Amino acid sequence: MYLLQKLSQENGPLCVGLDTDPSYLPPEVLSCYDSPALATLAYNEAIISNLKNYACCCKVQIAYYEAMGLDGMRTYSKTLKAVRAKGLPVIADIKRGDIADTAKAYARAHFSGDFEADIITVNPYMGFDTLEPFTDWCKKGKGIFALLRTSNPGMKDLEALELKDGGIVLDRVGAELKRLAEQFGASEDEASPIGAVVGCTEESNARELRDAYPNIFFLIPGYGAQGGQASIAATLLQKASGTVNSSRGILCSWKKDASLEEKRAKGALTLDDIVESAITACNSAKQDLLGAMRG
Amino acid sequence: MYLLQKLSQENGPLCVGLDTDPSYLPPEVLSCYDSPALATLAYNEAIISNLKNYACCCKVQIAYYEAMGLDGMRTYSKTLKAVRAKGLPVIADIKRGDIADTAKAYARAHFSGDFEADIITVNPYMGFDTLEPFTDWCKKGKGIFALLRTSNPGMKDLEALELKDGGIVLDRVGAELKRLAEQFGASEDEASPIGAVVGCTEESNARELRDAYPNIFFLIPGYGAQGGQASIAATLLQKASGTVNSSRGILCSWKKDASLEEKRAKGALTLDDIVESAITACNSAKQDLLGAMRG
Repeated sequence: MYLLQKLSQENGPLCVGLDTDPSYLPPEVLSCYDSPALATLAYNEAIISNLKNYACCCKVQIAYYEAMGLDGMRTYSKTLKAVRAKGLPVIADIKRGDIADTAKAYARAHFSGDFEADIITVNPYMGFDTLEPFTDWCKKGKGIFALLRTSNPGMKDLEALELKDGGIVLDRVGAELKRLAEQFGASEDEASPIGAVVGCTEESNARELRDAYPNIFFLIPGYGAQGGQASIAATLLQKASGTVNSSRGILCSWKKDASLEEKRAKGALTLDDIVESAITACNSAKQDLLGAMRG
Repeated sequence: MYLLQKLSQENGPLCVGLDTDPSYLPPEVLSCYDSPALATLAYNEAIISNLKNYACCCKVQIAYYEAMGLDGMRTYSKTLKAVRAKGLPVIADIKRGDIADTAKAYARAHFSGDFEADIITVNPYMGFDTLEPFTDWCKKGKGIFALLRTSNPGMKDLEALELKDGGIVLDRVGAELKRLAEQFGASEDEASPIGAVVGCTEESNARELRDAYPNIFFLIPGYGAQGGQASIAATLLQKASGTVNSSRGILCSWKKDASLEEKRAKGALTLDDIVESAITACNSAKQDLLGAMRG
């Protein structure tokens, strides 16, 4: 998390979301590979190797790879390795949460071996004892982003319920993350391995959450294709700061790229074309976010 | 879920939890295989093929397989297939929960392809919109068990929080499951594909939950090695009924099997020995549960 905080300052706060569903690739590119999983791997690797300093990390959403079965899991493993080989932290967006020995197995699964990531997302719903096996690994250099305030409409169903003793459900998660972050000596200057997922939704909410958790580094989804604005992200990017994820806005940018109009119409797009488009989208997102941060 | 309800009546309510960590196998058995994942597969397949009518289903906890990396995922896939080939429903204990397209990808991942299961466990924390992609598959014969009341001490942290408007957090999950179950025409005699995970914890709690959700089929963890008693499980096994999971109590039964004492001391256990012990444990668990149900 320390490296991520540093790179977010140096390279800008963009997190490239490699949530690569094969349907995001044009058929003429897909057909060049033996399987959708191999096409996805080629696309991911090409993006990763051209990222330069446009991003501070990549987030890989495991659901899309699980959906491709065993081939997909191979692509997932190789994608994680490619990001780490580039010196960028990789966030495994796995939202795991379970008890006791099972949580220990998940921690082993995603902090070592074929699926080793630097940071993982976790779901705290079953209780705070479920976080322990993950925070044990945080003592050895790994990090977590626990779900705090998600960006979907359904967040009102449980996360936002008002409690008898005051506050809402997600405040309890926040209080526990604050406690854990303090144990790790978190400050605004040096975040701890205990991060939080905070959706890029509305300004007043962003301000409130940033002020409530000044020492916690945020993973910020919802920017770009999901509708969140750079100005709201900029609010969340104060104090201990954070990283702003964009997935489809980058991966599908070739679909709206004016310079590719003719090739697109002809069904003549190449891997290079769509990767170039994605990298241009990364740079635009980076500039958009930096501009908003400058005010 | 209909098949599961029927088999629970015919074969008894035992769910065999194939949460097979390779550390549950004796070293002399492990060393007969090229990898822990292959040893695990051999053990799982031998149990499954000897299950006869001791159980109504198997539950496979994916965490232990993810922890073995790509080899583990192959074992996971083959274990699911082996259970289904036996005509038993297989529950994938994956506790996934995510939004929109990501939830759709998880549903595809675990209801089709290499990791196809009949029923999966889901985590509702991010809101009820996250259940929709899974309930869409329920219209096509699949089923879900949503986390309602888990059996770990940490359940008090969020699930049991008292709400300003009355009730506790998990009541809201229950109300939504009830609503969904009604949409599917659930009754005590014919459960719907919408099930709930309800831990085997204490009698008063079990009574309350069984009465509150008479039309919902329960997946009941916490029995056996986790300390839950058959009498409490029996309370949860009324009305639309349920299935009671035992994992370590079965998988690790060879460690306490008196008839294996000598072989165990000599480090001379075979796969057949530990499978026989596991099957004996299945039958004991079945009889224990049936006895408690008779009162």
